[in-house]
Amino acid sequence: MRVVIPIYDRFTALDAVGPYEVLSRIPGAEVLFAAERPGPVRTDTGSLAIVADAALAEVEACDVLVVPGGTGSRVAASDERLVDWVRVRHDTTSWTTSVCTGSELLGAAGLLAGIEATTHWSAVERLESYGATYRPRRFVVQGKIITAAGVSAGIDMALALAARISGEDVARAIQLGIEYDPDPPFAAGSVESAGPATVALVMGVLRARSA
Amino acid sequence: MRVVIPIYDRFTALDAVGPYEVLSRIPGAEVLFAAERPGPVRTDTGSLAIVADAALAEVEACDVLVVPGGTGSRVAASDERLVDWVRVRHDTTSWTTSVCTGSELLGAAGLLAGIEATTHWSAVERLESYGATYRPRRFVVQGKIITAAGVSAGIDMALALAARISGEDVARAIQLGIEYDPDPPFAAGSVESAGPATVALVMGVLRARSA
Repeated sequence: MRVVIPIYDRFTALDAVGPYEVLSRIPGAEVLFAAERPGPVRTDTGSLAIVADAALAEVEACDVLVVPGGTGSRVAASDERLVDWVRVRHDTTSWTTSVCTGSELLGAAGLLAGIEATTHWSAVERLESYGATYRPRRFVVQGKIITAAGVSAGIDMALALAARISGEDVARAIQLGIEYDPDPPFAAGSVESAGPATVALVMGVLRARSA
Repeated sequence: MRVVIPIYDRFTALDAVGPYEVLSRIPGAEVLFAAERPGPVRTDTGSLAIVADAALAEVEACDVLVVPGGTGSRVAASDERLVDWVRVRHDTTSWTTSVCTGSELLGAAGLLAGIEATTHWSAVERLESYGATYRPRRFVVQGKIITAAGVSAGIDMALALAARISGEDVARAIQLGIEYDPDPPFAAGSVESAGPATVALVMGVLRARSA
């Protein structure tokens, strides 16, 4: 089973690495990071580069596609070659997934029109501009398309996907392997729990970053 | 504030990228991945490489040290140059932290003798061989040393550390930014919740990997 994670300038590392850490542990899985050109791709903070081991054009097919988000997702969603690549690869995947604003690339490829989906809480309007109906859940399954909420939600999504691919026993073993027994020190992971002041603070940072 | 994450052959990506994703969002923080030599460092699955932007020898000081674990941690803990580097850098850090079996490197550097600490649930004996007393918690704070449990626990640890460095408002904003409102699809993230059959399955995989 081949899992391909396309990465692009200013993606968010955890969007990609969370699902990678889960899916790479499925027996028989092979995970490949790919980008326009092989080599280092820098993330949205500028302080980390992850290596693409292949060029997108070399990737002929994949069973699972995981599209990460990031501050670069809007630019990526306007890159016709990348969006075409997603659309063509989707034709033959078993599962096509996105994390966070990776949903923009699925949307631009026309894959979200008329279905339910999720994304980062700050990107709901953009998601719905592609014809999707937003659902505020950790992940939303619609046929073979799974969209996950912001950044860390990719871990929850990937565990559920691992169970669909290889059964719940395998998914539970992977969860124990990465000791995923989360216990956040604060209750601030959603718009509701964080409250308006924290939401305003984050929106200010996001606006500054995407400017 | 400078955060340094030393990486080595066969580290676990999420051990490093979880804390990176949190700590890099602290205002004024600069995160640097470093290794024996600059360039790509391959993780424990073999299917991902993360770039070290600096050589360890070039890193003169850091405020926060985050040591990831992985199947390569035992070899890394026997690398005297790396362990010496950890010991010397620790002298002037504000915080010295480990995730998962990154605790082996702190242990080998003599930093855990006589204190409470945590690590991946499968590595308790090794942790205690360095004179630490294991505590089965997501993370354990002892003075300026914080050890986190396996892999995903680095996210919880880093949020708590962000609050200590910049206050709870900042930590809450970071948590919302990465939409960290975890909802694992299964209850299998700890030895207790996973049960003996799942524990045995994972132990078999871990033994095969480290052989």
